[in-house]
Amino acid sequence: MKPIKVGLLGLGTVGTGVVRIVEGHQQDLVSQTGSPIEIAQILVQDKSKARSISVSPDKLTENPWDIIENPDIDVIVEVMGGIELAKQYMLGALERGKHIVTANKDLMAVHGAEILAKAAEKGCDVLYEASVAGGIPIIRTLVEGFSSDRITKIMGIVNGTTNYILTKMSQEGAAYADVLKEAQQLGYAESDPTSDVEGFDAARKMTILGTLGFRVNVALDDVEVKGISGVTKEDIAYGKRLGYEVKLLGIAERQDDSISISVQPTMVKQSHPLASVNGVFNAVYVYGEAVGETMFYGPGAGEMPTATSVVADLVAVVRNLNLGINGRRAFVPYKEKKLKTDEQIASKNFILLHVADKAGVLAQITQVFAAHEVSLESVLQHPNAMNPLAEIIIITHDANKASMKKVLQQFESMDVVHAIKSIYRVEG
Amino acid sequence: MKPIKVGLLGLGTVGTGVVRIVEGHQQDLVSQTGSPIEIAQILVQDKSKARSISVSPDKLTENPWDIIENPDIDVIVEVMGGIELAKQYMLGALERGKHIVTANKDLMAVHGAEILAKAAEKGCDVLYEASVAGGIPIIRTLVEGFSSDRITKIMGIVNGTTNYILTKMSQEGAAYADVLKEAQQLGYAESDPTSDVEGFDAARKMTILGTLGFRVNVALDDVEVKGISGVTKEDIAYGKRLGYEVKLLGIAERQDDSISISVQPTMVKQSHPLASVNGVFNAVYVYGEAVGETMFYGPGAGEMPTATSVVADLVAVVRNLNLGINGRRAFVPYKEKKLKTDEQIASKNFILLHVADKAGVLAQITQVFAAHEVSLESVLQHPNAMNPLAEIIIITHDANKASMKKVLQQFESMDVVHAIKSIYRVEG
Repeated sequence: MKPIKVGLLGLGTVGTGVVRIVEGHQQDLVSQTGSPIEIAQILVQDKSKARSISVSPDKLTENPWDIIENPDIDVIVEVMGGIELAKQYMLGALERGKHIVTANKDLMAVHGAEILAKAAEKGCDVLYEASVAGGIPIIRTLVEGFSSDRITKIMGIVNGTTNYILTKMSQEGAAYADVLKEAQQLGYAESDPTSDVEGFDAARKMTILGTLGFRVNVALDDVEVKGISGVTKEDIAYGKRLGYEVKLLGIAERQDDSISISVQPTMVKQSHPLASVNGVFNAVYVYGEAVGETMFYGPGAGEMPTATSVVADLVAVVRNLNLGINGRRAFVPYKEKKLKTDEQIASKNFILLHVADKAGVLAQITQVFAAHEVSLESVLQHPNAMNPLAEIIIITHDANKASMKKVLQQFESMDVVHAIKSIYRVEG
Repeated sequence: MKPIKVGLLGLGTVGTGVVRIVEGHQQDLVSQTGSPIEIAQILVQDKSKARSISVSPDKLTENPWDIIENPDIDVIVEVMGGIELAKQYMLGALERGKHIVTANKDLMAVHGAEILAKAAEKGCDVLYEASVAGGIPIIRTLVEGFSSDRITKIMGIVNGTTNYILTKMSQEGAAYADVLKEAQQLGYAESDPTSDVEGFDAARKMTILGTLGFRVNVALDDVEVKGISGVTKEDIAYGKRLGYEVKLLGIAERQDDSISISVQPTMVKQSHPLASVNGVFNAVYVYGEAVGETMFYGPGAGEMPTATSVVADLVAVVRNLNLGINGRRAFVPYKEKKLKTDEQIASKNFILLHVADKAGVLAQITQVFAAHEVSLESVLQHPNAMNPLAEIIIITHDANKASMKKVLQQFESMDVVHAIKSIYRVEG
């Protein structure tokens, strides 16, 4: 049978993994799809660079258009990353009727709707399983596994770098800056870690998961983002004492037709399955009206896990090619987007205050919550080594965001409140 | 657009859930598939019985052939259970070109190959996501999510009843018989619990998972089965002290081209993600050569979770109908089955012995292991209240089953060994 020819854009970590799997598992791929799959051309930045796999030099090119304009190429596998150039190449490839498999979350979060519209116009497949949570087939699960259900909540640990840092801080009582440095030395964090530690990477993934789970076009700007650079070892220690672990959670919620999406460090009850997802592992917790609680756990990144997802998508494209149905099984959001207002977004909260250590302060504090109709689950006060200050930790019941903002504003204007040290969302 | 007509065989718990979802989510189903889906006829045992949902009496029939022979019916959803009658109906429906969605693990484990062969012959879909681990889309995950990988191990907590019993025993230090009785009163265990507690239900599910994961036709007889009725609270307490939880695990393993499949109570290290899967929840842990460790967690049974999976399959059948590709995306095992010999099956083991409490016994015991080339990870001896006996707990390194059999045989012939109290496989 005629081999399916693949053009690979990028021969970094993931690209190398793709070559390894396609070559190493060729017989299995033929058995499953009916067609041999051949990596026919590869875009690299530098043809002369030494590589950990042997690739015929004839296949390498430094010019992406050699591949995109090659009429023999059926499928483009994009694992080069970046946004604007990748978008140009993707649109160019679709224009020429080529199908696409991509691991590029940035591209899909920012330009996904445009790329998918072009794919629909051209009858092409665009699959992107590897863009979220590396080796976990979460996109298939949301689109097909839960096609019959109505998802109400998705909570994800979708960034391995921050989960590694928070896990280390929790297990070793270490400070953020020290663990970040160690993570950089180990290659788990980049030299400029902003995109990971400030939550931007997780926000892009939540844009994709929210779109798929709620069947609306979520935009990156819809995601409220807070990173982990302000998480202290004291916060983590307090959380532990009260039975919580701090995790950077992406949370997408739906109530009736309104949704909200956010990324923030969250106090997760230790009994919740997300609390024990440690190190660089990822997990996505999905709550559906009918199915209830489910969770999907696995490696979030890495050469081979991510390449597994890329090649699984490639298998799907090849099956579609052989059935002549490319572009006809695409996921299309069909619901209108409506974002929740601050009055509609509710969660429990953990608040750590430094207050004056004198009589009547606790009453004043709790009065502020009562005035804004925020009810409290627990209050913990104890004098602190830093006399004359006391620390108060408050965990609220579900409170809406608008009320919480007013509570915090009022605290800022009160003399007895010396500092709002931390505030976390609480889940589980 | 012309509605797709469904014949539902069975209106028990799951059948009722299917009706609820198809009616309640009709607009979503139309948006996703392009077709209305209508439950046109329903097989019941007694038309006059009162029901928790309102169904037009015209749709009910007590004769399955009214449905199977009805030329207007496109898809049969089989949620009646049982094996021989269900098989007759399924083959009858396929003979007439009808597609099938079934939640029937017993049927698929025993006659799956025959039914799938008939489906292939007739160009029909047979989907059975709900047959394993209720609400967890594990079949899609194995077939599509990991199509590019080579799975080497699947470990599943796939029976909610036994996991409920073991969880209760562990959390409350309760005895097996007491917890079983309570589970029966709560409806978590049947009045004849044999199929669950002796591991037969789990074995059927592992037959299906092994077939999908390893792409060979696993037969139910290939699964070695041991249930939980011999698990004592003392075993669980000993396990906990050493850092293990006892779980009924289905384990399917592959090494090169040889596989082994078993179900047995297993000591699972507390740090392993399966150890904290509690109550009636199910989880399937999958290890792939490329992807590494993954785990899929969710409700294993229940009206709505199982119905979610059934209707997700129905959505897939309807999409295939609209694309004209039914029967063409079927999973077909393509590898030859080769079962491991006892010499090839290796695991760690936990062994609890009662031995004479006198000098030199431990040396004699450890000598037996050495003679059969079984090396030991840890040995714990302590005198027991039941003097003159001592208890010895041994955890072996990976040891093959043939050697372990010889070790145990030799213990049985030794005067100083009063009893082999328990033996468990160890994982994690």
